[in-house]
Amino acid sequence: MENRFSPGRALSVDQVPQWDQETDVAIVGFGAAGSCAAIEALDAGMDVEVFEVASSHGGSAWWSGGEVYVGGNGGTSVQKEHGFEDQTDDFRTYLTMAGGPAADSERIELYAQNGVEHFEWLKSQGVTFKGTYLPGKWIEPTTDDTLIWSGNEKAWPFSAKAKPAPRGHTVQFKGWGGGKLLMDTLCEKAVALGANVHYSHRALCLVVDDSGAVRGLVVRGDGQEKFVKARKGVILAAGGFICNQDMVKRFVPEALACQQQVTGGNDDGAGIRMGISVGACTLNMQEFFATLPFFPPESLVKGIFINERGQRFINEDTYHGRVAHYVLRQPNGKVWLLVDNEIFGRPMLQPNIEIAAVGETWGEVEEQLGLEPGSLTTTVDEFNRHAAQEQDPYFHKAAEWLKPLTTPPFAALSYCAGDFEGHAFTLGGLATRPTGEVLNADGDAIPGLYAAGRTACGLPRWGEGYSSGLSLGDSTFFGRQAGMSAAKA
Amino acid sequence: MENRFSPGRALSVDQVPQWDQETDVAIVGFGAAGSCAAIEALDAGMDVEVFEVASSHGGSAWWSGGEVYVGGNGGTSVQKEHGFEDQTDDFRTYLTMAGGPAADSERIELYAQNGVEHFEWLKSQGVTFKGTYLPGKWIEPTTDDTLIWSGNEKAWPFSAKAKPAPRGHTVQFKGWGGGKLLMDTLCEKAVALGANVHYSHRALCLVVDDSGAVRGLVVRGDGQEKFVKARKGVILAAGGFICNQDMVKRFVPEALACQQQVTGGNDDGAGIRMGISVGACTLNMQEFFATLPFFPPESLVKGIFINERGQRFINEDTYHGRVAHYVLRQPNGKVWLLVDNEIFGRPMLQPNIEIAAVGETWGEVEEQLGLEPGSLTTTVDEFNRHAAQEQDPYFHKAAEWLKPLTTPPFAALSYCAGDFEGHAFTLGGLATRPTGEVLNADGDAIPGLYAAGRTACGLPRWGEGYSSGLSLGDSTFFGRQAGMSAAKA
Repeated sequence: MENRFSPGRALSVDQVPQWDQETDVAIVGFGAAGSCAAIEALDAGMDVEVFEVASSHGGSAWWSGGEVYVGGNGGTSVQKEHGFEDQTDDFRTYLTMAGGPAADSERIELYAQNGVEHFEWLKSQGVTFKGTYLPGKWIEPTTDDTLIWSGNEKAWPFSAKAKPAPRGHTVQFKGWGGGKLLMDTLCEKAVALGANVHYSHRALCLVVDDSGAVRGLVVRGDGQEKFVKARKGVILAAGGFICNQDMVKRFVPEALACQQQVTGGNDDGAGIRMGISVGACTLNMQEFFATLPFFPPESLVKGIFINERGQRFINEDTYHGRVAHYVLRQPNGKVWLLVDNEIFGRPMLQPNIEIAAVGETWGEVEEQLGLEPGSLTTTVDEFNRHAAQEQDPYFHKAAEWLKPLTTPPFAALSYCAGDFEGHAFTLGGLATRPTGEVLNADGDAIPGLYAAGRTACGLPRWGEGYSSGLSLGDSTFFGRQAGMSAAKA
Repeated sequence: MENRFSPGRALSVDQVPQWDQETDVAIVGFGAAGSCAAIEALDAGMDVEVFEVASSHGGSAWWSGGEVYVGGNGGTSVQKEHGFEDQTDDFRTYLTMAGGPAADSERIELYAQNGVEHFEWLKSQGVTFKGTYLPGKWIEPTTDDTLIWSGNEKAWPFSAKAKPAPRGHTVQFKGWGGGKLLMDTLCEKAVALGANVHYSHRALCLVVDDSGAVRGLVVRGDGQEKFVKARKGVILAAGGFICNQDMVKRFVPEALACQQQVTGGNDDGAGIRMGISVGACTLNMQEFFATLPFFPPESLVKGIFINERGQRFINEDTYHGRVAHYVLRQPNGKVWLLVDNEIFGRPMLQPNIEIAAVGETWGEVEEQLGLEPGSLTTTVDEFNRHAAQEQDPYFHKAAEWLKPLTTPPFAALSYCAGDFEGHAFTLGGLATRPTGEVLNADGDAIPGLYAAGRTACGLPRWGEGYSSGLSLGDSTFFGRQAGMSAAKA
C-alpha cells in the first residue's frame, strides 16, 4: 500500500480520491525552518498545518548548539555592547567568501541587511540570550554566554578582506545543546499562534496539477494515508539527507569519510526528493559540512598539520570545519598534527586519536612516520624560523597562534583516514529564491512550492566556508521568508 | 508564443491539442549519443525521429578529435597487434579511479566487459581506423594513426593500481579533427537505416501523462510548434551545458576560469533541463573537463609546477586535464611552470603564455616572482637531487620525465589565473541506469525517458580523472544502450 507513493514521484491531482484536510499553508518538518515559516504564515493570518515525521518537535536543530550567526548594520545589540562594530559591508563580504564559488549574492544581501532585525525577531519570539561575550576559540560554548567567535572571521584569507567580528549568538543555556531551548521556544510559539501540528506524520509525496503547480501533498499518519490540500502552498522544511545512505553515496560520497552524522535522525532527503519530483533543480549536492574537532585544548591550534609529503596545507587557526575539508583531501588520506611538549594535550573531542610518533628531535618523528628524509624537518624548521618572528608567510596563520615548535619531546597526532571521527551533514538542496520559492531548471518558480533550511541550498553551501551558527541563522531567517511568501501567494 | 513552452516545464498530455507526428522512438540531438541510439533502435525495427537544433549533424562530437577510449578483454585488435595486453581487470580499475568519488561501478562494468565489442561495432558501422600505433605524449594526434596514450595510464597513482595500456583509438584522419569523419559515418549510417532527421528543430519541452510517464515532446521547426508522440520513449542526447552561461554560473562556476568552451555551439543544457522537468535527478553537476594544454613541446612535461608557496602540487606527467584541475585550485590562482634551458620551448597551444621570470640562478627566478626567500629554491633543489637519481618520492612522476633542472638560464612560465586559455565542457547530467533509463530522486526509472552522452552523467564524471576519448567512448556506447532499451520498452 505504501509503495503507491514515493517522494520522488509526484501524484497528479486527478488521482486524488478526496481531500482529507485543507489548509492555507502545509509545512513539512517542524524544525528551525518549519517553525519559523509557521510563525510568519500564522502572523499573516493563514491556517497552517505542520507534518512532522518525528514524534516531537525541533528537528535536527533541537540537537544543535543553539547558535545563530548574525551581524551587520553596525552590529547586534550584543556585538555593540561588547565593542564590536560590524558593518554590513564586512558581513556581506564574509558571507560571500563563505559561500564559495557558487555564493548567492541576492540571498546574502537579504541576510546581511536584515541579520540584526532577525536577531531582534528571535528575541521577540521569546528566545533568550544572556548578552555576554565569551572570548577564545570554541567549538561550542559550555557556558550560557552569548557572543562567540564561531567561524573564520579572524583567519586568513577571510580576515584580509572583511573586518573580523564575532557573530555567533548562542541562546542562554548551560552546557552543550542550546538547540533544545531555541527549538522549544520557537515551536511552542508556533503552536500558541495556532499551528496545527501532526507528529509522527510522514510526507509521502507532493500533489501537482496539469500546469505543474503544487496543490498539496499526501501524508501518512494515524495508520492511514491522508490527502492534504494546500490552498496557498507547501513549504518543504524537512532537513537535509545525511541519514540517507543511498543519497549520500550518489550525491556526496566524500562525506562517507565522516562516521558521525550531525542530525536529529530524520534527515532522509525526502523534502529534497519531493522537490525534485515536481521539476525542481538542486544546487551544490556535493557539498557538506565536515569537522574533526582537533581542539580543545586550544593550544593544539598552535601545532601544524602536514601531509605525507611533509607539506603544510592550511593555516591551522581557520574554522575547524575548513581544516577538516583540507585534511580530507590530502593524498592517500595521510595527515598528522605536529606538536611540541609545550602545546601538547589530548584532543578532548577525539579521545581515540593516536600518537603516531614521538621523538626528542623532529628528525626522529620524521623517521618514525616513514617520511622522506628532510621533508618534515624542512617544513618544521621553516615554520619555526618564521614563527619566532611571529610570521607565517606561506599560510598566514594569525600571530596569536604562532609559536616555534622547539620544546621536546615532539609528537605527531594521527589524522590519517580512519584514525579520527569526522562529523558531517549535507549542504546541497533545492534551488530557491531568497524568498523561498522553489525554482525549476530554467530558474522559474514552481507555483505553490517553497523550501527552506537544509532542504534548500541556502547560505551555508560550501564546506570550506561554514561557520557555526550559519545553518541555524539561515534556517530560521529563510524559513520566515518562505512562510511570508506562501502567505502572500 | 514560444514562451508557452520551456525545457524546465513539462507539458501535461491533457494539454496536447493534437499529435502532429508519431513515432516509436524520438531522439533529441544527432551527435555521438543520438546517432548511435538511432542506429540501435532502427536495428531493432523501430521508427525513429531525430530532432536536431543545428542545421547539420554531428553535435559537439563533430568538432572533436574522433578518439574513442576503449580496451579490456585482453585488448582490442589494435592494442593486441602492437603488443599491448589490456585485461578487463586493469581497464575496470582504471575507469573506477577515473570516475572519482562517485564512480558508477555498474556502468563501468558494462563498459569494461564490452569495450572491445564496441570498437568492433564502430568498425562495422563503417568507421575506419588505420590500425597503427603512435608512441609519445599527445594532446591529439596530427597524423592518421590509431592507438595513442590519451589519459593517466602511465602516471601515478593510476599506474600503481592498473597495468597501463594505451586506449585512445582515433579514426583515420590526417590533422586535428577526426570527429568529422566519425560523426559523418555514424550519422549517415543512421539515415541509411531509416532515421528521419529533422534539422533546425528545437526541442521545447517533454510531454508527460498523469502517471509521470513521458509520452512525447514538443518541438519547434519549420516556423511552427509540433507535438510529437513517442510510443516507446524519448531519448535525450542533447549534449551538456557549457554554452549556457546561466547554468554554468549556477552549477559549475569554477569552469568560468576557462575562456574556451569545448562545444559545437549547442550545449545549452536543454536536454538536462527537460529531464529535470519530469522529476529526474542530476549527478555531479559541479564537475567539468578542463585543460590548459601546457605541452607540446613534450619537453615541457619535464618542468615542475609550483604555487605561490613554492610548493609542487602534481606529478606533471599526468593527463593535462588533471594537471589543469590542480592548477585551477591553487591559492590566489598563482602557478608557474619552472623550466631550464634544456627543456625550454614555447607552449604550442598556449602561444600567449608569459615568461614571468628568467635568471641565471633559481634564486633570481624566485626573487623576480616575489616569492618567499628559499621557498622555490628549496623545492627545486629537492626535486633536482631526486631527479638525478631518477626518483620523485613526493609526486611519483615517472622516470622518463625526470631530469634535474640545472642548465641555465632558468625560467618560470606563468599559469596564473587569467594568463592562460583554459578549455572546458561539463560532465554533470541526468542520473541514468547504464542501460539509459533516466532515474528520479528515489532511483526509480521514469517511464518513457532515456538519456545518454553529456546529457547524462556518464563514465566521464570527474574532472581529475578525464582521459581523451572517454566522452566519445561513453556517448557512442551508452547511446547504443539507450537506443536498445527504448526499443525494448
